[in-house]
Amino acid sequence: MQQRKGDPFGTHRVIEPEGVLPQPALRLDSVSPLYANECLIDVERLNIDSASFVQIKEACEHDVDRVKEMIIKIITDRGKMHNPVTGSGGMLIGRVSQIGIEFPANGLQVGDQVATLVSLTLTPLLVEEIQHVNMNNGQISIKGKAMLFASCPFAILPDDLPESVSLAALDVCGAPAQVARLVKPDDTVVVLGAGGKSGLLSLAVAWQVAGEQGKVIAIESNPAACEVIRELGIAHEVQSVNAKQPLAVKGMVEVLTAGELADITVNCVNVPDTELSSILATRDGGTVYYFSTAVKFTAAALGAEGAGKDVQMMIGNGYTPGHAELTLQLLRDQPALKDIFYQRYQA
Amino acid sequence: MQQRKGDPFGTHRVIEPEGVLPQPALRLDSVSPLYANECLIDVERLNIDSASFVQIKEACEHDVDRVKEMIIKIITDRGKMHNPVTGSGGMLIGRVSQIGIEFPANGLQVGDQVATLVSLTLTPLLVEEIQHVNMNNGQISIKGKAMLFASCPFAILPDDLPESVSLAALDVCGAPAQVARLVKPDDTVVVLGAGGKSGLLSLAVAWQVAGEQGKVIAIESNPAACEVIRELGIAHEVQSVNAKQPLAVKGMVEVLTAGELADITVNCVNVPDTELSSILATRDGGTVYYFSTAVKFTAAALGAEGAGKDVQMMIGNGYTPGHAELTLQLLRDQPALKDIFYQRYQA
Ligand SMILES: NC(=O)c1ccc[n+]([C@@H]2O[C@H](COP(=O)([O-])OP(=O)(O)OC[C@H]3O[C@@H](n4cnc5c(N)ncnc54)[C@H](OP(=O)(O)O)[C@@H]3O)[C@@H](O)[C@H]2O)c1
Ligand SMILES: NC(=O)c1ccc[n+]([C@@H]2O[C@H](COP(=O)([O-])OP(=O)(O)OC[C@H]3O[C@@H](n4cnc5c(N)ncnc54)[C@H](OP(=O)(O)O)[C@@H]3O)[C@@H](O)[C@H]2O)c1
Repeated sequence: MQQRKGDPFGTHRVIEPEGVLPQPALRLDSVSPLYANECLIDVERLNIDSASFVQIKEACEHDVDRVKEMIIKIITDRGKMHNPVTGSGGMLIGRVSQIGIEFPANGLQVGDQVATLVSLTLTPLLVEEIQHVNMNNGQISIKGKAMLFASCPFAILPDDLPESVSLAALDVCGAPAQVARLVKPDDTVVVLGAGGKSGLLSLAVAWQVAGEQGKVIAIESNPAACEVIRELGIAHEVQSVNAKQPLAVKGMVEVLTAGELADITVNCVNVPDTELSSILATRDGGTVYYFSTAVKFTAAALGAEGAGKDVQMMIGNGYTPGHAELTLQLLRDQPALKDIFYQRYQA
Repeated sequence: MQQRKGDPFGTHRVIEPEGVLPQPALRLDSVSPLYANECLIDVERLNIDSASFVQIKEACEHDVDRVKEMIIKIITDRGKMHNPVTGSGGMLIGRVSQIGIEFPANGLQVGDQVATLVSLTLTPLLVEEIQHVNMNNGQISIKGKAMLFASCPFAILPDDLPESVSLAALDVCGAPAQVARLVKPDDTVVVLGAGGKSGLLSLAVAWQVAGEQGKVIAIESNPAACEVIRELGIAHEVQSVNAKQPLAVKGMVEVLTAGELADITVNCVNVPDTELSSILATRDGGTVYYFSTAVKFTAAALGAEGAGKDVQMMIGNGYTPGHAELTLQLLRDQPALKDIFYQRYQA
């Protein structure tokens, strides 16, 4: 048992195509026994990536049984929860059931409850049963097994937060951590899709860093979510605008910034076709941070060129050192924000 | 005539879907008469984007007549040369035949030969006839008409370079201009797809900036193109490695940098599935510059996360102020590099 050692990046579980890493692979082996440098998890709950869950719900006409079937089909076909349309996944929580002798455990023990901090698009996953689908927040209770590779970051779940709340926050913990790096005091920051998970966390960080002299502008389509942001008091301006309408977004940001536009725009929307809104909201020399996985590379690259906009555009890397701690601490430090996460995600 | 004024970004020519800008649009109106703030061009030659041309050639099994048909079909269906599979376009040259009275002409005159510095994916285009397809370099001689919007950058072609050479270089002029901004003295720079148009121009800039103490590493699949790079003497190391194989690329860069990896990796490949190679070639804290339009957003975002790599990833904006001048000057300053462009692209 546990004799074989796998590749730290998991290529040993790629079935097709040959030579690629698990993320872009079409199919993973989620059946073979644990390798010596892997960790086995009894999966309890999936958090389906928001862009993926929107797409699945629409394809299934919001029928929960069809959603279940579609998720099972994807996992069975691919050996992982990798939505073929959006290309995105999500993450999971579960309990450690076996630790390979060469897995870099860093104190992890069998029985610990963990969240994987890597995308489901590269996590070998075997599902036995879907117990419940929460159609509002994309959290799915399941019975199943997953494997963690040696290179994959994970977090032991804290005791002081409900697991469903930790799961929701950790799914998007790359966003606030990157915003903390990018935003400088006095910056004008626009957050698109500001009322969602990553949007609220990004706003909270921008509000802390950009501070009094800066300007934090929240743009969100959902009027109820706008009201939540206003009550939290973590933005100077909150506007209900459709992020799919580039000229409307540009016009609004122009008005709110006296024509100066944003130094940094953070895109946290969960629907497609928002690349140009982000670009046009941003000043020449400014930065667009695309966290949304619904972003299309060419639409951003060629769209900026077409508008003659000299903006730096960054792809939202889900990993930043310390991102999980930063995000959970943000919730602890801001009780009103934590309350919103409890209301929406507590199981 | 010329009474109506259009939107500077060209939304007045979008047929569907409503409310979007011309780049992501499914179909543009390339038939209506010129608006007062547009410029009409008699098109002479298209330079099909390399990722798009590879895809079209493969889909047509390298049959030139089928390639012609497919290009005409795309332009006719969409009112622009916007490859639906790769999402990319290319650019064009032609002569100015009419200048709207409100077009920001900046000295441009009827009869001038210009290159559009915006993607064909957002340029309204009407094709009458395809005269010749160069299957080697993706340049297409055509008779047709195109419109430039007020926001679209363009360049008057210089007298001292053949138009086909200017066209080839200007198609990718965003790459060397961005590399000039990103690379610092002493950096270790890896260029993937280093033997192509954007690869050679990027190498040349990296070689100038990273200088003696830096290290410039060229990675390219084509051995003949590797030989060209060696003869040009614009890289410290030149290696023939397939950029689709992340572990091979990582291993090679590790060996060449004594395990330090690249400060900056520039991706200039024209085929898909090279996101992870770029990420794994780069050190933690380093930057990946994705110029290739074959890059998939989610493969990059989720791939970096999956590998636990803290790299900054940038989307190649085709526009940078001064990019056209910088690129043409690079060719003038480096006669050996200019010779390569003459050999490959002179009509
Ligand atoms: N890069 C990464 O590593 C990574 C990791 C995880 C997630 N993501 C991606 O990040 C994005 C945000 O995720 P999330 O979990 O924060 O999503 P979320 O909680 O579902 O929030 C999305 C927000 O965007 C709003 N919205 C929807 N359509 C809009 C429109 N047309 N204009 C303006 N706002 C609009 C939504 O409003 P409604 O309430 O009306 O729907 C919602 O408030 C998703 O695309 C997700 O896939 C990326
Ligand atoms: N972001 C923007 O605004 C923008 C603008 C224009 C173009 N682009 C994109 O930039 C990319 C490069 O364009 P280009 O015009 O410079 O292309 P190019 O001249 O065709 O060069 C591509 C190079 O990559 C090499 N290559 C192909 N497959 C490879 C592999 N598996 N491993 C390593 N090298 C490989 C090719 O070698 P072979 O000789 O063997 O084919 C060639 O030398 C394309 O994807 C293009 O679409 C982006």
